[in-house]
Amino acid sequence: MNFRPKIRIGVIGGAQPTRISRQQAYQVGQLIAEKGAVLVCGGLKGTMEAAAKGAIEKGGLTIGILPGENPGDANPYIEVAVATGIGYCRNALVVMNADVLIAVDGQYGTLSEIAYALIQKKKVFGIGTWEIPGVIPVNTPEEAVDEALKEFYTLLR
Amino acid sequence: MNFRPKIRIGVIGGAQPTRISRQQAYQVGQLIAEKGAVLVCGGLKGTMEAAAKGAIEKGGLTIGILPGENPGDANPYIEVAVATGIGYCRNALVVMNADVLIAVDGQYGTLSEIAYALIQKKKVFGIGTWEIPGVIPVNTPEEAVDEALKEFYTLLR
Amino acid sequence: MNFRPKIRIGVIGGAQPTRISRQQAYQVGQLIAEKGAVLVCGGLKGTMEAAAKGAIEKGGLTIGILPGENPGDANPYIEVAVATGIGYCRNALVVMNADVLIAVDGQYGTLSEIAYALIQKKKVFGIGTWEIPGVIPVNTPEEAVDEALKEFYTLLR
Amino acid sequence: MNFRPKIRIGVIGGAQPTRISRQQAYQVGQLIAEKGAVLVCGGLKGTMEAAAKGAIEKGGLTIGILPGENPGDANPYIEVAVATGIGYCRNALVVMNADVLIAVDGQYGTLSEIAYALIQKKKVFGIGTWEIPGVIPVNTPEEAVDEALKEFYTLLR
Repeated sequence: MNFRPKIRIGVIGGAQPTRISRQQAYQVGQLIAEKGAVLVCGGLKGTMEAAAKGAIEKGGLTIGILPGENPGDANPYIEVAVATGIGYCRNALVVMNADVLIAVDGQYGTLSEIAYALIQKKKVFGIGTWEIPGVIPVNTPEEAVDEALKEFYTLLR
Repeated sequence: MNFRPKIRIGVIGGAQPTRISRQQAYQVGQLIAEKGAVLVCGGLKGTMEAAAKGAIEKGGLTIGILPGENPGDANPYIEVAVATGIGYCRNALVVMNADVLIAVDGQYGTLSEIAYALIQKKKVFGIGTWEIPGVIPVNTPEEAVDEALKEFYTLLR
Repeated sequence: MNFRPKIRIGVIGGAQPTRISRQQAYQVGQLIAEKGAVLVCGGLKGTMEAAAKGAIEKGGLTIGILPGENPGDANPYIEVAVATGIGYCRNALVVMNADVLIAVDGQYGTLSEIAYALIQKKKVFGIGTWEIPGVIPVNTPEEAVDEALKEFYTLLR
Repeated sequence: MNFRPKIRIGVIGGAQPTRISRQQAYQVGQLIAEKGAVLVCGGLKGTMEAAAKGAIEKGGLTIGILPGENPGDANPYIEVAVATGIGYCRNALVVMNADVLIAVDGQYGTLSEIAYALIQKKKVFGIGTWEIPGVIPVNTPEEAVDEALKEFYTLLR
C-alpha cells in the first residue's frame, strides 16, 4: 500500500492574474490532474483558484495552504485546506510541500515563493512570470507540466 | 458540489503512548473514518500513527501536519502530509485545522495542543489525558467520537 | 567583549490579571532588572505590561515578542519589540528566548507557554498560576526571581 | 519617555559575500549606528555579521532574528538575539521588524527578503544586489544609509 501521492506540483502565481494567465493556470491544473499528480497551492484567489478549478474538474487532488487561521478561507476548489495562521510565512510552506513548481504570472508574493523554491533547490518552470536566474521559462501549460513531471522522474532516479 | 470534508476531528496524544492508549487511538481513528469524518493529527509516531492507521484501514482521509520541512517524515498512514518547518509552532496548526479534538494520553506536547484548542474555543474530549478545566473526560473511543460528532452538529446549527 | 545579556527571564501570564497578580508581575519585573537580568515577554497588556513597566523603571532591558505584524503593537515599556506575524505560534518563541520562566496568573495562553517551557526542558516558577506537574510553585516575586537566578547559575555550571 | 528606537534599518545580504560586499556591509553598519538608528538583521554570518560588527563598534544596538531555536546561534555582534525556530519563515520577520531595508550582495535568501519587503511596501536600497523592479540601486554605503533615513523621515511626515 502506498497512500502518499506520487508527485506534488506547486502552482504559484498572482491573486489578480490577467485573463490569459488565469486561463493558463486553469490548463496547468487540468493537466496536473490528468497526469495523476497532486496540486499544491496557496488556496486563495486568482491563479491559485484557476489552477485548483482545473485540477478538481479533472478529478485531481488539490491542497491549499492558507495564510489565515480559518480553513474555510480556501477557494471552493480546494479539497484539503490547511490553515496556518502564520501570514506571510505561509509562502515558504507552499514551496516546501511541492516537489517541483510552476509559476504563472505573479507579483512580489510569487517572487518570494520563487526565491524559496530556489533556496530549497527545487525546479521552477515559469510562464509569463519573473525572469530570475534559476527560473526555467516555458511557453505553454503543456510544456510546464511535461517538464515538471520529467524533473520529478529525474529526482526519483 | 462541495469538496470540503464535513467534519475534521483532530487526534492529539503522545509519541510514546502506553499499549492501552495506542489501542484507544487506533479505535478512535477507525470510528472517525466509519462516521465519514476526516482525521487531522501531527503526522508522526505513537497515538498519531495509531489513529491514522485505524482511519486509513476504514477508508478515511488522514491529514498529518508535521514539524519538519519534509513531507516524507509522515508516518505511512498519512494520506496528505503537510510539512511546516516551524518546529514547536506546528502544534497550533494541528488544532487550527480541526473542528473538535480528541486527546488520548499525552505529555507536554499534548498539553500545548489542549491549551491551543481551549484558546481557540474548540471542544476537547479526553481519554486518559491531562485533567485540565475545559477538557471533557470520556471513557471510551466510542464516547469520544460520538461526543465530537454531536459537538460538530451543534456548531452547525 | 560579551554583548549578550547574562540571563533572560521570561515572564508569562494573563492579559487580564487580577489586581494582585498585576502587582506581583510588576515586582517580578523590578527584581529582574535589579538583578541585572533581561526580561522577555509577549509584549502586550496585563502581566506582560506590568512586568515590563517594573523592569524598565529599574533600568532593565525588556524584549517583547508579539503575535502581530507590527512592532508598534507593543506596550510602552518594551524596549525591543519583535513582531512575528505568526499569531498563536508566537507563544513558543517567548519561551524559546528565555533561559527560565516565571508564570503569574494566566489563562490558556499561559498554559500553552508553560507546556512549551516543559517541552523545552526549561524551569517554570509559578505564582498563583496553573498547577501542572513540572511547574514549581513559589509564594512571592522575590522567591520567583531568586529561584530563577539559582536555576540559571546551575545551568552554567 | 520614549523607549522605542527611532528607526530600524534592516540589512539583508548573503552569508558568503565577496570581500567588497563584506566591507560595504560593515560600513553600512557603522553608519547606521552613527546616525542613531537600530540595526536589524538575520543574526548569522557574512553580511549580517559584518554589518552587526560595524554597528556594535560604533555603539549601536543590533537585533538578530534567527532561523533556529537557540539564541546562542547569533554572531558575536548581536546584542539582542531572537530565536524563532521557524526556519525559512524567519526571513519574513527580519523584514517585518525593519522600517526600511538595505540589501548588500545576496543570493536567493536575500531575494526572498527583498520580495517580502516589497509585499510589505517597504523601501529597499540595494548595493550590488538583485536588480528587481522596486529595489532602488545606490552606489555607496553612505548613499544607502542617507536614503534609508530620508525615507524614514518621509514616512513620519
